[in-house]
Amino acid sequence: MATIMAEAPVQQKSNGTAPDKRWVYLFNALDVLEKEVQPASWDDVRSLLGGKGANLAEMTRLGIPVPPGFTVTTEACNAYLAHDRNFPPGQWEQEVAAVHTLEQQTGKRFGDAENPLLVSCRSGAKFSMPGMMDTVLNIGLNDETAQRMAELTGDPRFVYDSYRRLVQMFGSVVMGVPDEPFEQIIEEVKEIRGVRLDVDLLAEEWQQITARFKGLIMAYTGSEFPEDPYKQLELATRAVFDSWFGKRAVDYRNATGIRHDLGTAVNIQTVVFGNMGEKSGTGVAFTRNPVTGDRELYGDYLMNAQGEDVVAGIRNTLPIGHLKQEMPKVYTQFLQICEKLENHFHDMQDVEFTIEQGTLWMLQTRDGKRTARAAIKIAVDMAKEGLIDKKKAIGRVQPAQVDMLLHPQFGNEAKKQAQADGRLLVEKAVNASPGAAVGMAVFDADTAEKWAKEGKPVIMVRPETKPDDVHGMIAAQGILTSRGGATSHAAVVARQFGTPAVCGAEELHINLEQRLFTVQTETENIEVQEGSWISIDGGAGEVYLGQLDTQEPDFEREVELKTLLGWADEVRVLGVWANADYPQDAERARRYGAQGIGLCRTEHMFFQEERLPIVQEMIMARSKARRVSALDKLLPMQRADFEGIFRAMDGQPVIIRLLDPPLHEFLPGHEQLVQELADLKVRLQHFHTLSEIDAALAEVRHKEDVLSRVEALRESNPMLGLRGDRLGIVMPEITEMQVRAILEAAVHVKRQGVDVYPEIMVPLVGHVNELKTVRKLTEEVAADVFKQTGMEVDYKFGAMIEVPRAALTADELATEAEFFSCGTNDLTQTTFGISRDDAEAKFLIQYVEQGILPRNPFQQLDRSGVGKLIEMAVQQGRQTRPDMSVGICGEHGGDPDSIGFCHQIGLNYVSCSPYRVPIARLAAAQAALA
Amino acid sequence: MATIMAEAPVQQKSNGTAPDKRWVYLFNALDVLEKEVQPASWDDVRSLLGGKGANLAEMTRLGIPVPPGFTVTTEACNAYLAHDRNFPPGQWEQEVAAVHTLEQQTGKRFGDAENPLLVSCRSGAKFSMPGMMDTVLNIGLNDETAQRMAELTGDPRFVYDSYRRLVQMFGSVVMGVPDEPFEQIIEEVKEIRGVRLDVDLLAEEWQQITARFKGLIMAYTGSEFPEDPYKQLELATRAVFDSWFGKRAVDYRNATGIRHDLGTAVNIQTVVFGNMGEKSGTGVAFTRNPVTGDRELYGDYLMNAQGEDVVAGIRNTLPIGHLKQEMPKVYTQFLQICEKLENHFHDMQDVEFTIEQGTLWMLQTRDGKRTARAAIKIAVDMAKEGLIDKKKAIGRVQPAQVDMLLHPQFGNEAKKQAQADGRLLVEKAVNASPGAAVGMAVFDADTAEKWAKEGKPVIMVRPETKPDDVHGMIAAQGILTSRGGATSHAAVVARQFGTPAVCGAEELHINLEQRLFTVQTETENIEVQEGSWISIDGGAGEVYLGQLDTQEPDFEREVELKTLLGWADEVRVLGVWANADYPQDAERARRYGAQGIGLCRTEHMFFQEERLPIVQEMIMARSKARRVSALDKLLPMQRADFEGIFRAMDGQPVIIRLLDPPLHEFLPGHEQLVQELADLKVRLQHFHTLSEIDAALAEVRHKEDVLSRVEALRESNPMLGLRGDRLGIVMPEITEMQVRAILEAAVHVKRQGVDVYPEIMVPLVGHVNELKTVRKLTEEVAADVFKQTGMEVDYKFGAMIEVPRAALTADELATEAEFFSCGTNDLTQTTFGISRDDAEAKFLIQYVEQGILPRNPFQQLDRSGVGKLIEMAVQQGRQTRPDMSVGICGEHGGDPDSIGFCHQIGLNYVSCSPYRVPIARLAAAQAALA
Repeated sequence: MATIMAEAPVQQKSNGTAPDKRWVYLFNALDVLEKEVQPASWDDVRSLLGGKGANLAEMTRLGIPVPPGFTVTTEACNAYLAHDRNFPPGQWEQEVAAVHTLEQQTGKRFGDAENPLLVSCRSGAKFSMPGMMDTVLNIGLNDETAQRMAELTGDPRFVYDSYRRLVQMFGSVVMGVPDEPFEQIIEEVKEIRGVRLDVDLLAEEWQQITARFKGLIMAYTGSEFPEDPYKQLELATRAVFDSWFGKRAVDYRNATGIRHDLGTAVNIQTVVFGNMGEKSGTGVAFTRNPVTGDRELYGDYLMNAQGEDVVAGIRNTLPIGHLKQEMPKVYTQFLQICEKLENHFHDMQDVEFTIEQGTLWMLQTRDGKRTARAAIKIAVDMAKEGLIDKKKAIGRVQPAQVDMLLHPQFGNEAKKQAQADGRLLVEKAVNASPGAAVGMAVFDADTAEKWAKEGKPVIMVRPETKPDDVHGMIAAQGILTSRGGATSHAAVVARQFGTPAVCGAEELHINLEQRLFTVQTETENIEVQEGSWISIDGGAGEVYLGQLDTQEPDFEREVELKTLLGWADEVRVLGVWANADYPQDAERARRYGAQGIGLCRTEHMFFQEERLPIVQEMIMARSKARRVSALDKLLPMQRADFEGIFRAMDGQPVIIRLLDPPLHEFLPGHEQLVQELADLKVRLQHFHTLSEIDAALAEVRHKEDVLSRVEALRESNPMLGLRGDRLGIVMPEITEMQVRAILEAAVHVKRQGVDVYPEIMVPLVGHVNELKTVRKLTEEVAADVFKQTGMEVDYKFGAMIEVPRAALTADELATEAEFFSCGTNDLTQTTFGISRDDAEAKFLIQYVEQGILPRNPFQQLDRSGVGKLIEMAVQQGRQTRPDMSVGICGEHGGDPDSIGFCHQIGLNYVSCSPYRVPIARLAAAQAALA
Repeated sequence: MATIMAEAPVQQKSNGTAPDKRWVYLFNALDVLEKEVQPASWDDVRSLLGGKGANLAEMTRLGIPVPPGFTVTTEACNAYLAHDRNFPPGQWEQEVAAVHTLEQQTGKRFGDAENPLLVSCRSGAKFSMPGMMDTVLNIGLNDETAQRMAELTGDPRFVYDSYRRLVQMFGSVVMGVPDEPFEQIIEEVKEIRGVRLDVDLLAEEWQQITARFKGLIMAYTGSEFPEDPYKQLELATRAVFDSWFGKRAVDYRNATGIRHDLGTAVNIQTVVFGNMGEKSGTGVAFTRNPVTGDRELYGDYLMNAQGEDVVAGIRNTLPIGHLKQEMPKVYTQFLQICEKLENHFHDMQDVEFTIEQGTLWMLQTRDGKRTARAAIKIAVDMAKEGLIDKKKAIGRVQPAQVDMLLHPQFGNEAKKQAQADGRLLVEKAVNASPGAAVGMAVFDADTAEKWAKEGKPVIMVRPETKPDDVHGMIAAQGILTSRGGATSHAAVVARQFGTPAVCGAEELHINLEQRLFTVQTETENIEVQEGSWISIDGGAGEVYLGQLDTQEPDFEREVELKTLLGWADEVRVLGVWANADYPQDAERARRYGAQGIGLCRTEHMFFQEERLPIVQEMIMARSKARRVSALDKLLPMQRADFEGIFRAMDGQPVIIRLLDPPLHEFLPGHEQLVQELADLKVRLQHFHTLSEIDAALAEVRHKEDVLSRVEALRESNPMLGLRGDRLGIVMPEITEMQVRAILEAAVHVKRQGVDVYPEIMVPLVGHVNELKTVRKLTEEVAADVFKQTGMEVDYKFGAMIEVPRAALTADELATEAEFFSCGTNDLTQTTFGISRDDAEAKFLIQYVEQGILPRNPFQQLDRSGVGKLIEMAVQQGRQTRPDMSVGICGEHGGDPDSIGFCHQIGLNYVSCSPYRVPIARLAAAQAALA
């Protein structure tokens, strides 16, 4: 051993850490750790040992069979990375000492040819990053130990299979050789032998494969595979440390928001062999169904296989239930362990196990990833079972998961029609991640990412996926694989990101080179080229050719979600209102739990087909009298709209925003008109009859008339032009008509017994005098309506805060406004000086990619800029009017992070799209609990 | 008397004032006032008595001959206006008692036929509002007193002239009859008599005129002219009070910024008669020349005339110097009084006097209005004379007056040419208000205002002007009258507003009905119709036909101004820098006293004719390499520009802003291209030869190419689009070229011995990471330039604060920026959410007119919104970087009010147009003294 120790890595001079610091903890040393480090919480233990290491230690303490091992801490990783990739002083000595302890615990010896101790080396960060970092199995094998072990066990097939795994993983993970040539060598040998499965290969073939693997490493790297087990261990430890900043890991952390300074721990564990014959096997399982959330074991296993075989999806697996027949005692023990783990960790567990010659070993437990639906069901069920309380249940579901549940689904009609048309390509593959997705087929991750950036929806189609593919999977609308089951890499990642996925669709014959797949249906052999449209139903495991229509999910049937949101409503402080322009929107909002309408945009009503001509007549009017006459025609239509919304929101407030967009938006575009005129004039040259020419000239005159009005109205920066309250002040007759429509509608429905709370909101206010002007108009109209109808209605008058000056002078505005609603879309535009229409394509995406902006501020509220203004509006507004109600009604009202901020600064409510109301309810509750 | 008292106005029940409150002060009761009221300052006395009343009382105290009288206070006016136009309790009784005191002082009796006391009733607000409010003379005359007085004085002509004046003024001022018919009656009588002047009319004619005036009043109002003198006094007092809210007064206050709640006092004064024969007269004079500022008496008088005759400009007057010959003793006494007044009030006085049968009476003194040039000269002279100190001198000149002095003048060449062309219409009229003005002739105030609003420059041409004309005079570029002298209404108002004016141009024959004037020149009779262009030189008293070219004034020759600005520099704290894009601008800025260049806009250089094609080549480049190649051609040009500016600013800092506008601004307009393409395609149908068609097709292809680039670049809101630092980040090669040009230029001139301080400014910064990105680029280029040239130059790197988010996160920006410059034009746009291009015509003017916005925020900094953001930028910026320099470089940098604000919040400097540098120097000094 001394000689081996002499080859330990050269120590750096000093990296400032205490020389006796402990970098390594044995799995059974949790009590030692607690005594030495005195962690404040389990979270601190996880920070130090990583999630996997902490849980292995905890399982050991719980008396669950775990192969002995030890963990090199995340602190060691960070010290290594911070000091030019040098191990901190003492780490290597402690690793070597820990190996000696394993030797004592197992009675085997590391590097000993007679009774070799083999170990695995796995990464394990604080937060699970499945498949993102590297693993090396069977460290300790070399030519000498393998040969002797084969003799001793009498099972050379098993030994050389294990040895080739070490060489393969070491080559790829530690020495950087690509995966494919290794697999190619195995495929070649199988082809020569004429067998289909790995298990059918014989000992000498594995031995031959191992030798070829070594040659491959030498050819690729110019270095020999190290025969020295300690060298293997050292290099594997380094490789795991290094993998923390590998591209895959960095991408994953960027995508999921995990911090880059946490580091990873390294878990060194005695290898148990699932490939030691027919009584051996390996598998992964969830303690509940991660797709549906049902309380049942869910997983796959493979007999006579090791480690990654199950997860990689390379060989098709057996469902875990099958183990009950195959090894009933092991199955029962496994069930008990699962229950123990769930009770201990208070959450659904994702476990890995190996059976070595009939003995069950647990290799890992962690909180399991799950679909949105499962997350909700498990949280609600566990709360009902008493395993967690309601508040914890609320915290267990991410708001984004609620969104996934309410994602569109394919309608039954659409499916039936597609089937009738012969477009059902795959009827029953693995329903790996639910939801409907429609996109163009692409065959690699880079293309998926590229096309998605260009705005094309894509479905990524692969035989199986690997961690390298994640950037494409994130970009894709859906994922489709021909191999692998419900726990394959593709399935796990898809569920995590809420991307619909169908896996193991063996009917697909994927040809990556020709970039197409073929499917033999009952009637024909269909070829689907890259770029063709396909539709997948990840909940049903179905694949269709073409684009299927989607339909709204049925909220009423989401019983667990409704229960959870009911609990959320009990704890949240922030109100949740909805933006709705039509009665049917208002009804949906109410069904989804909205407590009011925070924004009813009256202009959307103007765009309706039968009204647009009247609106255009109003705009084209050359005199106020003509304008008023057009407005008179619009009045009953607007009134009817408002009546519908008031009825739908009986008993709840409805904020109606007065007309906001610039008038030219209601007219044809300038270019269109110019082009049409130019075309007409060209055509004029070809007319011959007088009547043709007369008609054409009349058309020219009309178009010129419209064009001149468009030219008079159009602006160089319409966003900052004559719109909002400016329009309603310059043309007060528009304001008058709208206020009249609102209040007449309110009186009318009140007479019918509806409990009505209209609130009139003035858009784009910048100065208190604007509010004064509109308020005076409003009060005059109100007095007239109440007098004429003989009935009064309480209404509120408020201001939209959507230019910075409104927020900066909120104390003044509050003298006139009874409520504020922050229009965060426009407020973000003016605070940044960025036009959303122009910016996203031209530089905003690049800004986010380059990290110049942390997030797209139109999606997630910019706290330090826009947020500061909103805080000022709240504080100054309430300074003047202590009971001032302040909400937001931009898109941020449906964004969980932004909702958290709104709660923090004491807003009264957020108002969002009806579809996002459930998300907002949950996010508001989580903010209150935070 | 008892019966008269019984007709006093009905008292209101109570208006909450103390019943013994004093509403009336005799002119000789200043000591009483000081004892009773204990005013904190002379300003308080003026607030209570009005400027005229206070000065009459002060003159009385100084022993200057003032006809006895009393003042009804502004408090009485305000109480009257606040209580439905009822006199406050006690006021009328006090007025009557004061009349009795006058009776004792003069030995005459009010309403007494034997020895009648006549009084004038004049308004007198705190701040002089010349001609804005109403005056009634000769109160106390009626049929009975007039007849008896005529008998007693033996001068019936004088008496009936005086009486008709009362009836005329009373009719017009108190009873609302228009002026014209009164004048028409006089003209008719003169015509019948065949005389030209008023003085040629006889007693019986004036008596007849008086009777016709009374009939006119009856006809117009249905009421008799009141014979009762106390009724006359009461109604005149009311009329003066009421005139405070007359349209003329309100307009004037709006135009000059006087508060509307001050109220006016009423001065009741014994009438002395300037129209009592050949030893009587009346006049107005200034103690110095109000046009040039020279230390000389300046004014006009008329013998045998009363009151308004001089000011109204109806009769042509004699210059004041003429009095020396006519009445040497009176002249000497007058001179002494003037000197006494100047020494007492420490300012040039504007006095009114009357000579009644050889006795001099002073009717008024006030600080005199003056031209900009005079204001400066008088302030500097008085400081040199020791009459005031330098600080007071600085406060005596309004910054806007400095601007007037630096207004353009007609060049000598242009004048000579116009003379040679026979376009000199008037060679030597009264040079009433200096400056050159070019505009279209208009003949009434309403037209002047209307045309000016439509953007047409106008010269208002009138026989004479009246207070009703002020709105038109304010709107006009210049004023031209055919009657009246240097103290006529037209001249006084024009000087106050700095509008060039030529008065008393008797050569003009104005025909108001036909809306034209004619001038007989040496060679021809020229007719000038409304709308024709004319040019006037108010400094020379010249009128030209057509539009004369103007040229820059010669700052070097403005000796007094330079002295005053030198004193200003001694007291001001705020730096004054200039915005300059070219070396010649920088030189001018420096001549005008700029301490640095606060904004050099690099894009202006891009627009130069020989560069635009290269800039377009850069923009049309489809690859980075091509773009870089075009940029390489621009580099030496930009470098040369910067070298010139650096040389001009030797020893002073120069802030250069990187490219700001969106690229499409450098390309032809979209519509233009579409139209050209459409035209080309129409023309294509008419070509026949192959070569014609080929050429046209090539042109189509080129235009389509440009059009497609324009379409790719153009934005719906370019103000909020891809511009500023966004452009320099998306196309870093532009930033690199500009930084290289700046630093290479700096190195080059430094080598030549120039003391160079370049500062690189990043426009449109919204997030600190943008600054980081550009700073990194800048540092890389700098390192390269310094390495290649072997010489280093100190430079600063800073941010332009022009979107709200920059101000809101100034603490973060300050980690990267070494200086801030607030671009208040853009900051105002984004803070209000208003595009200046679109807003001014479409609603901003209306907003200011309606009082929704107090001022145009693009002219005067909006303190409560934009100002708050700038304050945040200053405070937060200095929190991070205590020595952070902060300036502004928008147009507000030259606005005195905005400069005051910049001083208050502790900015380091303002940067403005070179022409406004002198104004800013003065305004900054005044802010420091405030």
